[in-house]
Amino acid sequence: MSGRPPAQPGDPIAAIDTPALVVDLAVFDANIGAMAQAVAARGLRLRPHAKAHKCPDIAVRQIAAGAIGICCQKTDEAAVFAAAGVRDILVTNEVVLPAKLARLAALARDARIGVLCDNAGNVAALQHAAAAASVTLDVYVEVDVGARRCGVAPGAPAAALAQAVAAQPALRFAGLHCYHGGAQHLRRPDQRRAAIESAAQDASESRTACERAGVSVSVVTGAGTGTWEHEALSGVWNELQPGSYPFMDADYARNIPEPGALRFAHSLFVVASVMSVPARERAVCDAGLKAFSFDSGVPRVHARDGLEYEKASDEHGVLAVAPDAAPPALGERVWLVPGHCDPTVNLYDWIVGVRNARVECVWPVSARGALG
Amino acid sequence: MSGRPPAQPGDPIAAIDTPALVVDLAVFDANIGAMAQAVAARGLRLRPHAKAHKCPDIAVRQIAAGAIGICCQKTDEAAVFAAAGVRDILVTNEVVLPAKLARLAALARDARIGVLCDNAGNVAALQHAAAAASVTLDVYVEVDVGARRCGVAPGAPAAALAQAVAAQPALRFAGLHCYHGGAQHLRRPDQRRAAIESAAQDASESRTACERAGVSVSVVTGAGTGTWEHEALSGVWNELQPGSYPFMDADYARNIPEPGALRFAHSLFVVASVMSVPARERAVCDAGLKAFSFDSGVPRVHARDGLEYEKASDEHGVLAVAPDAAPPALGERVWLVPGHCDPTVNLYDWIVGVRNARVECVWPVSARGALG
Repeated sequence: MSGRPPAQPGDPIAAIDTPALVVDLAVFDANIGAMAQAVAARGLRLRPHAKAHKCPDIAVRQIAAGAIGICCQKTDEAAVFAAAGVRDILVTNEVVLPAKLARLAALARDARIGVLCDNAGNVAALQHAAAAASVTLDVYVEVDVGARRCGVAPGAPAAALAQAVAAQPALRFAGLHCYHGGAQHLRRPDQRRAAIESAAQDASESRTACERAGVSVSVVTGAGTGTWEHEALSGVWNELQPGSYPFMDADYARNIPEPGALRFAHSLFVVASVMSVPARERAVCDAGLKAFSFDSGVPRVHARDGLEYEKASDEHGVLAVAPDAAPPALGERVWLVPGHCDPTVNLYDWIVGVRNARVECVWPVSARGALG
Repeated sequence: MSGRPPAQPGDPIAAIDTPALVVDLAVFDANIGAMAQAVAARGLRLRPHAKAHKCPDIAVRQIAAGAIGICCQKTDEAAVFAAAGVRDILVTNEVVLPAKLARLAALARDARIGVLCDNAGNVAALQHAAAAASVTLDVYVEVDVGARRCGVAPGAPAAALAQAVAAQPALRFAGLHCYHGGAQHLRRPDQRRAAIESAAQDASESRTACERAGVSVSVVTGAGTGTWEHEALSGVWNELQPGSYPFMDADYARNIPEPGALRFAHSLFVVASVMSVPARERAVCDAGLKAFSFDSGVPRVHARDGLEYEKASDEHGVLAVAPDAAPPALGERVWLVPGHCDPTVNLYDWIVGVRNARVECVWPVSARGALG
């Protein structure tokens, strides 16, 4: 890890250096427990997506709560989690370059390693890497169930690729990966429900096609924090991959919930401090483009009336002060909910866990920057 | 540094693991030389902004080319550059929290350290920290010359604050910081010229007010890569702080240049590889929201016709393939120009320098994530 942690266990929260990535552990624990319980109650497997946190300490807690393993998105992330002792890892991505495939296969000596495939040419490369490392890789055929990103078309193309995988001696056809990323942030519940109904048809048709072709499908995996209850109810998916639910973020908070749906609360914040109060209507805090990812909008000011995060430059966050609000003092701390948790966490080397107004733990974000 | 470097010196460029942050050293050297020469020819001081690169190896090269020192924006960045041997560092920001002030003052035992001030209450805190560390801090009064971010109003308020700084025994009033961030990306040259003419009036009025108040102003510092020639011509600034010029980015490339102005070329790329070719019109590369900052738009595909970077998710970049373009092959490398260099560099632990199709150096981004 590079750099000094912004706090030490036992510090009062007022002593955390800013900007810092802070998790409210009471909320975080409740989020982790609620998802584990809900997925278990439906008789499904939970494989949380660790791309959201990149933090082995969190993966360990998810597994202790009942998760069967984790997902991640890159070979280098898988290496970090495997080194930390996680024994069941699915890389929810295609891996193509030979050097990456060799690294991925080497991990399968000590852990169960899964990877996606959406291309017949890639099957031979996967087989070659697994055989060279004397391991078996779990290969999931990725089906495009509506995201229009990676994946083969549903039905016959999925079955043909599954057969090709199953024919390789060093590969195990592990199931179908059916994730509809584009559905996660549809704002209205009926939009999300309709998108997942359509994805379920594609997934089901693909499973049927595989089984007709003589390839049994033991796992259909997918889903995210925005839609997981729909996948869970579909009867098609038997493994769910939500990632953001331990933290939540301002973008997910803009989703209108399904009536009666399980809710997760914000546990993740960037704590910033005010470093300039140049005008009645404006204050400037020390968290800008290098403290948040802005791909899903600006951060939201938490539990402080009359302040809005207006715009950012590299290391400045301009806060608009409402005319009737108490103007912030120089040095005042502001708790900000990131727009998008995953790429925001990826900016930090440390997550500071707080409970009862004290720092309880400081976790390294060990897979931060693990892009390879 | 966390993580494995994506290449080793001597590797062919085709062996660089992706995604990687890559600098074309021939272009980079030319950019650094051209700025150093242009600023020296005008008889001005060059203090490049190291927030753009966060890399001591680059700061050393800028200083070797004639820069008098560097700027950075955070105390922790200053600590990294001081530890690497840089001896003249200006933190172009207000520093308020007592723990940060103590760290900043400690750096002044081994290096000349400057910092900004825009608040009378902060003067006492600066004096206290400097006295406690038995050092002298250079303090620049930040004047709001149009950016509407930090800074006191031009004229009398700037002079009053300069007097307050000059009255403190452990502080040296070092000059005026007059940076118009909002002018850097005005697209038309006449817009940028007008913004800097206005900023020059504010800066000049502030300098005159200081001198009438008996405080001499030895340095007026500011300017960025978008406007530096205007500040240089104004006769008001005698120190320039451009940051992006060694790299350039897609956002700066959208500025329409002043006729006859010095041009800087793109030296900074993210090299990605294609990991999925699911449809004739679409390919997917391995560089997404964690490989680029998207605050200034999507990356631009470099030197490859018929591909456009369309949208990103965490670790996917969707490339639109034009109907008449050669479709990319699985594993094909794509060179991408980041939308905004500074926060993109902040995502990487390493900068890979290439020349003549080989890796020449791998520099650590030592101040990456130095937010405190």
